Order: sequence, then C-alpha cells, then structure tokens
Amino acid sequence: MRFDVITLFPEMVEAASRYGVTGKAIDNGVVRLKAWNPRDYTRDKHRTVDDRPYGGGPGMVMKYQPLFDAVSEAKENGFGNHAKVVYLSPQGMPITQSLLNESVHCEQLILVAGRYEGIDERFIETVCDEEWSLGDYVISGGELAALIVVDGISRLLPGVLGDENSALQDSHMDGLLDYPHFTRPENIEGRVVPEVLLSGNHADIERWRLKQALGRTWQRRPELLKNKQLSDVEYELLQEFIVELV
Amino acid sequence: MRFDVITLFPEMVEAASRYGVTGKAIDNGVVRLKAWNPRDYTRDKHRTVDDRPYGGGPGMVMKYQPLFDAVSEAKENGFGNHAKVVYLSPQGMPITQSLLNESVHCEQLILVAGRYEGIDERFIETVCDEEWSLGDYVISGGELAALIVVDGISRLLPGVLGDENSALQDSHMDGLLDYPHFTRPENIEGRVVPEVLLSGNHADIERWRLKQALGRTWQRRPELLKNKQLSDVEYELLQEFIVELV
Ligand SMILES: CCCCCCCCNCc1ccc(CNC(=O)c2csc3nc[nH]c(=O)c23)cc1
Ligand SMILES: CCCCCCCCNCc1ccc(CNC(=O)c2csc3nc[nH]c(=O)c23)cc1
Repeated sequence: MRFDVITLFPEMVEAASRYGVTGKAIDNGVVRLKAWNPRDYTRDKHRTVDDRPYGGGPGMVMKYQPLFDAVSEAKENGFGNHAKVVYLSPQGMPITQSLLNESVHCEQLILVAGRYEGIDERFIETVCDEEWSLGDYVISGGELAALIVVDGISRLLPGVLGDENSALQDSHMDGLLDYPHFTRPENIEGRVVPEVLLSGNHADIERWRLKQALGRTWQRRPELLKNKQLSDVEYELLQEFIVELV
Repeated sequence: MRFDVITLFPEMVEAASRYGVTGKAIDNGVVRLKAWNPRDYTRDKHRTVDDRPYGGGPGMVMKYQPLFDAVSEAKENGFGNHAKVVYLSPQGMPITQSLLNESVHCEQLILVAGRYEGIDERFIETVCDEEWSLGDYVISGGELAALIVVDGISRLLPGVLGDENSALQDSHMDGLLDYPHFTRPENIEGRVVPEVLLSGNHADIERWRLKQALGRTWQRRPELLKNKQLSDVEYELLQEFIVELV
C-alpha cells in the first residue's frame, strides 16, 4: 500500500514515519510513503502557499493551485485516479477502527495535511473524496493526523505485525477495552499479580481476561456496551464483575 | 509549561516536536519538552524494557521498573510531585477540547507512551494520575498521541499563536464545525467565491459564516448540536440553512 502526504512539513512526516511499526512496514516494502510539499508547486517568486481569507478575519487559508498540483503529481507518481484523496480536518468524519479496517483495501491513499485556518473549500469539493478527523479537539495541522492514519492502517496490513501479534487477534474482544497486563516481577512492593494468571489454567485465564475487558468497558466507556450485543457468557461475566465490586 | 515524554523512541518525539506550533513554542521558551527513554533506566546487561505477559498470550508487556525510574527522573528534573502523569492508551478517557483547555494549567505533564500490548497494570495504578485516549481506533504506540497532546495544549498557551490567530477567537462557535474558507483567485474553473464574502458587509459575513457552521454541524455531526443550547438567532440561521437546501 502506498501513502502520499501533502504537507508543508515533509521532513517531519518522513522523519516520524521511520520509527516503529510504520518504519518496519516501509523497510519490508509493504508500505511506501512519500511526502509532497505544495510549496514546490507554487509559481510565484515568493513560493506563496497561503493567502488571506475572502470576507476577512484572522488567519490564512491554503491556496488551491499548489495543493492541486501536488496531489496531481502524487497521483501520476502512483495509481492515478485509483487513489483516494483524504483531507484531514476537524470538520471530517471521526476516524473509527472500522474506517481504518476498510482502508487497508486502498492501493493509494493521498492524505492532505492542512495548516493555518484551513484550505480553500473548492479544493475540498473538487479534489478530496473524504474528510477525516481524529476527534473533537483542535491541533495545529494535519501532519500528526496523517501519521496516525498511516500507523493505524499499516499495522493492519498482512506481514507487518507478526502472526503472533496480529492486529486481528483481539477480534474476540471487538468493541471492548483491553484487560490488564502484568509481567515480572510477581510482587512489586506488595502488589501481586492476580493468582489466576499464574495458575496455568488457560480456560480460567481467558474467562478472567474477558471479564476484566467487559468490566472495564462498563466502568469507563459504558456507551461502547450499548452498541455491542453481549452473548450469554459475556453477560454473566459482566454480572460477576459488578457483583464482585461491592 | 513543561512536557516530558517517556518513550522508547525519544529521537522521534524530539524530531517531530521541532516543527510547527510546538516547535515555535519551544523556541520562544513558552514550552519545554524532554524525552526520556526507559531503556536508559534498565539494570540488566540486555537493557530489557519488556517481558512476556503473566497468563500467556501474544505480545509483550512493558516492565514496571524502567518506566518508574524514567518518570522519577523526569519529576526530579522538573516539578517533583506537582507533575501530572498521564498514560496514553486506548483504555483511557477520550481526549476532548475541554480536557486540553484544562490542561494548560499544569506546570508539568509527564506523558507515558506505551509500545507492545501495553504496560504493567501496577505502573498505571501507582504512578499514573490519568489515562487518555485519542479515540476508538488502534495505533501501535503512544508517541503520536503524546505529540498530539503537546500540540493541542501548546497552541492554547499565551504567546504561542499570535493574538490574531488566537485559539480563543473561535469561542463564539464553540462546539460547532468551522465554516468554509476561500482565498484567491475568485474564480477557479467556474467555481466562484460566495458573493457575500466579497460584499464588505461584515455583519452579513458574520451571519453567513455562523449559518454555515451551524448547517455543516447539523449535516455532518448532528450529535454535537444535541449538546449545545442554540440561541434564537442561531436557531433561525440553522432553519434558513435547511430551507435553502431544498
Ligand atoms: C466540536 C468540533 C470542534 C471543531 C472546531 C474546529 C475549529 C477550527 N478552527 C480552525 C482550525 C482549522 C484547522 C486546524 C488544524 N487541524 C487539523 O489540521 C486537523 C486535521 S485532522 C484533525 N482532527 C482533529 N482536530 C484537528 O485539529 C485536526 C486547526 C484549527
Ligand atoms: C473500542 C475501543 C477499542 C480499544 C481496543 C484496544 C485493544 C488494545 N489491544 C492492544 C494494544 C495496546 C496498545 C496499543 C498502542 N496504542 C497506544 O499506545 C495508544 C495510545 S493513545 C491511543 N489512542 C487511541 N488508540 C491507541 O492505540 C492509543 C495498541 C494495541
């Protein structure tokens, strides 16, 4: 899969993508990432990428033409009109795991990272297929959002995480928060690892973990349970968790 | 304000923080950012930061002691027990703008970025004050989340964005999506800038923008309007927007 990021900070995006899971996916050749700077597509002496908003007001707006030409080059360099163009913005649809899961099937994802107050609306309307947001908080540009999308999709691609660590291994706990994890030592200043995890009884361990995942989700994010159909076993485990609290 | 990031990839965090708003905030001395590698606090020959989970299963878990010692050093180097320690994880409370707004009052925020399946639960219980999540999607580690928190808070600190671009200037559109932006040229392949924005009538422009913000929020994120009490004027503008659609 190929990612192209349209950004005024190509070095930042390229540097940050060299680490961790994305870095490995790039090294393995599973992912290709290229950053394109709209400034390289300007046609004036000052290499102007932004201008004042029509109607006045604070801040600057990114100009259509340099963005358009940068996206065109990324398409020519890649899969042409098979590419999906996504504008990252607080006005976008909130990213969810399903959105990332579906996106693994794209051949080329062109991620447009904005700066300043935003980009010319006509670019969004005519060039972008979708508009995605990280969540309801404001950051100063789309670069970190692009890196999150690249990371979240890369780890789903076959061959990126080992079989063992496969991103799909959590699928039986789909829509739930994770259970608690413990590693050595057994005792840290009197805090000991739950006995069941030392028992070697794999069925009991599985039940305990599912119960913790259900219980934590109920405690911290009850709205996630509303969207989930619990099986009889899951319902019983959650009851047990709640009863044991009192 | 001081940020400390506990991370296995300190160079990535430091490199990425040099750009944009965070980079400027650091240059101006408004923000200080330091990354600490738990690996530098290991005590064994192999500098082991992770180990297998008690109870078995795939993946590795980050060990308590190197994380504990890294956080202790960040506290000693900063504001001691005045520091707030936040673990970034998919199990955390979803970050909102209010959370970021409140966090500008911290003297020191220590952001713990996990890798692998997670970190020893006893570290979360005994060392961390809060657990924060970017949203309901899975990425491979906490570094990008830490950078988002640093960016989202830095832009709110006095002196970081110019007065003009002040993060607070949007406050009359609190809880709404932004209106569309346009800049030169006026005509792009037949797509022209909305007339009102060229009128010079500032009251009309303000009304149009508020109407667009309300209309887009209603179209794209109706649930945001449920949490917002509309004034009479806002209600009327939204009605107008809807009527003009048909
Ligand atoms: C309840 C939703 C609140 C949304 C309010 C949006 C107000 C926007 N004001 C101007 C502005 C435009 C663009 C930015 C830069 N942000 C991104 O490029 C961005 C890209 S993806 C994203 N996801 C969440 N938040 C974000 O800020 C972003 C920051 C401020
Ligand atoms: C409906 C909520 C779904 C949550 C499912 C969580 C399953 C967790 N599986 C193991 C896992 C642990 C830690 C990571 C690394 N993630 C972060 O460090 C992280 C830090 S903040 C954050 N916000 C959203 N998503 C995230 O993945 C994160 C990835 C997978």
